Amino acid sequence: MKTDIEIAQEARIKPIEEITKMLTLTKEDWEPYGHYKAKLSDQLLEKLEDRPDGKVILTTSINPTPAGEGKSTVTVGLGQALNKIDKKAIIALREPSLGPTMGLKGGAAGGGYSQVVPMQDINLHFTGDIHAITTANNALSAFIDNHIHQGNELNIDPRRVEWKRVLDLNDRALRNVVVGLGGPVQGMPREDGFNITVASEIMAVLCLAKNMNDLKQRLAKILIGYTYDKEPVTVGQLGYEGALALLLKDAIKPNLVQTLENTPAIIHGGPFANIAHGCNSVVATKIAAKLGDYVVTEAGFGADLGAEKFIDIKTRAGEFEPDAVVIVATIRALKMHGGKDKKDLAEEDLEALKNGMENLKKHMETIEGFGLPYVIAINKFPTDTEEEVNFVHHWCESRNALVSLVDVFAKGGEGGLDLADKVVQVCETEETNLQYVYELEDNLELKIRKIAQKVYGAADIELSPKAKKQLVQYEKLGFGNLPVCMAKTQYSLSDDPTLLGRPKGFTVTIRELRASAGAGFIVVLTGAIMTMPGLPKKPAALNMNVSDDGTITGLF
Amino acid sequence: MKTDIEIAQEARIKPIEEITKMLTLTKEDWEPYGHYKAKLSDQLLEKLEDRPDGKVILTTSINPTPAGEGKSTVTVGLGQALNKIDKKAIIALREPSLGPTMGLKGGAAGGGYSQVVPMQDINLHFTGDIHAITTANNALSAFIDNHIHQGNELNIDPRRVEWKRVLDLNDRALRNVVVGLGGPVQGMPREDGFNITVASEIMAVLCLAKNMNDLKQRLAKILIGYTYDKEPVTVGQLGYEGALALLLKDAIKPNLVQTLENTPAIIHGGPFANIAHGCNSVVATKIAAKLGDYVVTEAGFGADLGAEKFIDIKTRAGEFEPDAVVIVATIRALKMHGGKDKKDLAEEDLEALKNGMENLKKHMETIEGFGLPYVIAINKFPTDTEEEVNFVHHWCESRNALVSLVDVFAKGGEGGLDLADKVVQVCETEETNLQYVYELEDNLELKIRKIAQKVYGAADIELSPKAKKQLVQYEKLGFGNLPVCMAKTQYSLSDDPTLLGRPKGFTVTIRELRASAGAGFIVVLTGAIMTMPGLPKKPAALNMNVSDDGTITGLF
Repeated sequence: MKTDIEIAQEARIKPIEEITKMLTLTKEDWEPYGHYKAKLSDQLLEKLEDRPDGKVILTTSINPTPAGEGKSTVTVGLGQALNKIDKKAIIALREPSLGPTMGLKGGAAGGGYSQVVPMQDINLHFTGDIHAITTANNALSAFIDNHIHQGNELNIDPRRVEWKRVLDLNDRALRNVVVGLGGPVQGMPREDGFNITVASEIMAVLCLAKNMNDLKQRLAKILIGYTYDKEPVTVGQLGYEGALALLLKDAIKPNLVQTLENTPAIIHGGPFANIAHGCNSVVATKIAAKLGDYVVTEAGFGADLGAEKFIDIKTRAGEFEPDAVVIVATIRALKMHGGKDKKDLAEEDLEALKNGMENLKKHMETIEGFGLPYVIAINKFPTDTEEEVNFVHHWCESRNALVSLVDVFAKGGEGGLDLADKVVQVCETEETNLQYVYELEDNLELKIRKIAQKVYGAADIELSPKAKKQLVQYEKLGFGNLPVCMAKTQYSLSDDPTLLGRPKGFTVTIRELRASAGAGFIVVLTGAIMTMPGLPKKPAALNMNVSDDGTITGLF
Repeated sequence: MKTDIEIAQEARIKPIEEITKMLTLTKEDWEPYGHYKAKLSDQLLEKLEDRPDGKVILTTSINPTPAGEGKSTVTVGLGQALNKIDKKAIIALREPSLGPTMGLKGGAAGGGYSQVVPMQDINLHFTGDIHAITTANNALSAFIDNHIHQGNELNIDPRRVEWKRVLDLNDRALRNVVVGLGGPVQGMPREDGFNITVASEIMAVLCLAKNMNDLKQRLAKILIGYTYDKEPVTVGQLGYEGALALLLKDAIKPNLVQTLENTPAIIHGGPFANIAHGCNSVVATKIAAKLGDYVVTEAGFGADLGAEKFIDIKTRAGEFEPDAVVIVATIRALKMHGGKDKKDLAEEDLEALKNGMENLKKHMETIEGFGLPYVIAINKFPTDTEEEVNFVHHWCESRNALVSLVDVFAKGGEGGLDLADKVVQVCETEETNLQYVYELEDNLELKIRKIAQKVYGAADIELSPKAKKQLVQYEKLGFGNLPVCMAKTQYSLSDDPTLLGRPKGFTVTIRELRASAGAGFIVVLTGAIMTMPGLPKKPAALNMNVSDDGTITGLF
């Protein structure tokens, strides 16, 4: 089969103007960025206010494994399939980060015949949103260090600056740095570190903001550190929320592109799915719902992290409700959850598959707990055997769960027609009864416990002494009514990445908390979370090239 | 008078498509970036190859002073004026750096009624070129640190990595940093530092590259440091020139915008004018020459730095010749060169003015030495007295020098009609006889001496022991035939920023050399050159804001 970049470069992609016409947008509603990308006006949502909302379909998955699930590919393929059955569908996705593209992966815009295009732009600088966030984040760091250097009126303790710098690169050497060296005219020496840009709180802020005013208010609330007297210091106190908002004036506008089959796709924002909420922007999802009969959108990692945050953080901030969920799994990944070794996944193994179904089962229960109907999508792999496929079908049918075998990677929308039919069926016949995992009025500890017990299936939580102290501090600072954002390993339902399948009786250890006061949530760290990836020995970048005529190689 | 951003926001700016039509560009020649910006195809220059070239007018100035000269404003105003007298003129400018915009200046896209627009975009992220360079520069740093961390096959000495990281911000705390801290899995600790992005060699490379192939070849030649055996290590040896070129695939395309009077302006690249050559891209200037009868372009700082590098570096790389020069001065700045204190510049002072003319005189001789005709443009200030203006006129006339009083800041092109007439006059009547300051075959020391003596008026040069050693080393490494790029204070003809006017008999001290092997020049440092600016106590950013309807304040 052809590579993703080959398929993308051969696609019959339409000028973006034609996509805007399909959406009945007027000239004032959008701006072109090249011939195949557009930015939608940040006034558009307000303009469409009175329109009815289309159905919002959330794509999530089992706990991810190295075997791969293809959640983005299924999201794109389902959007294409819905259009094939004459439903006006729009896809809403996260913007890929450039750093990992240069490292291991080579690209992240779906795959095969279910991609968003132009993938070579989407995977690189796209329309510059992530660069704008990098700039705003690091401008804030410069403002903080400048404030300390120029008299430190706010009495900021350089040892307690929590705001970190960022780059959209995989660069382990920047994880821990010392800045401000070189003597008194070069600033105050202090420890610092760089995260990858998608881990910046500004990314989360941008994705949760309803409009420019909301964005500015959130920016002003960002907690950058503490004074020598341990009092919190915010961006608002420094006075830079206006400048930061100005740096984000274009980044706040959602981006419109298309799939290989010309289904409209709004790609906007891409916060980390552990220390942030892992969903595209509220504005993108809501605009898509105004413009289409169906929005297919995804959340990061498995349902324990992505879907939970989608419900408890994103839908609350955006004041909307999803209509149905698609849970993506692969037979390979299920076998891994059932104990099969990665190198043996091509072998048929019904026992491992049966055991692995327990992971899927837990996520089904979680979605049921949210009060939402769902369809299971089994993303086909060439190594799947007929026996294995049959087993999954019977397993689901015996539990009255809708399941669909999809082959959107190789066939595009055509490979997802059955899934599309089933999604439409549940949207048209099943009622939703949205239940949050916790109430905002619950104290922070109770919120964490409810997530751990209801969503992860934990016996209990255990708080480190530091976390206990922080819980008291954060309640005191008035953060008690914020939602919590769990930073847990994505590989397991528990906080131990090696416990696959459906672990039981475990305790989730809460190591530390962090206030993302601008984004409006308290991050709860259950272990060491990597916020700046490294590069492998032979990075994907070694194989990348572009020729004089613009032909790109090595991007996947 | 209104602020620049107010004037810019009230301007009757045309959709960029209309500007492309004025230039008879076809749909294949350009891509829109919003409604008012476009990127020109990187194939365009090749396509226009057989067209005759328009006249290339270089705008330069006396040594800059804190009083301000307004070189960019005159460049824009002259372009507008040429169009008013029915010459098809195109402006070619550098892209402003975002860092200083947040700091002191607030904006850099001309001023008053001689601005390029949309200034709020040009001064912020524009079309993302500088962000792409930041990314490519820092990706290379990550690749270097990853190489060292993952076995260090090339035996790179971490103490001798010369490649620095960059950000497009004013951030003194990043001038000197230690990276790679935190233990063995976080990389190799080493000293590093951040420059502002426009000081990245990749910016210089982009501006001198003829096309994508040339870009890749230059990237491969970049010297990143030395091995433990003191052998040079290049990007080509690491194998990342393809990936870096891919990251620059859009940045290589020149940007088209317009002035307030709808004169086309190509804005592309903006390298530092001390450690680099300080001119917009070769491709931008050459395309402008193919599309217009006149190109007005500028070089950084005064004629001792900018014009010399334009001639000796840029025209050599681009294989073209300028047709005339405009030397910009203000009466205020001339008085400062004549010894007047900055706080007293509003006072008439013919004696100070007379003394200050000596600075202008030296630059006139320099341009004559290049074999190029010139016109002196006196950029009007409200405080100029009639006596002072008359003095300058008589002084110039008695030396047979063409001079024009311009008021393009307050009047736009209308304020530069006389200058435009005179520029056309010299282009139509005077022959050029381009003389480089040195031959490429001269050894590096001789090149430096010729510049110091001919262009600065120095008695001689003096080499530090380090510089002497480096001269030998660089000749041995095969860099002897490269042009040199002087990094000298812009404020004085000498290497002492306090010596204004026309100092004589001085010696230029050569402290250190640096090889920009990809850009293709040897940087010669005559003193401490600041490559990462700091922020003032009250940064301009404090006053910046953007409202819900997109109205921007504080950008100027």
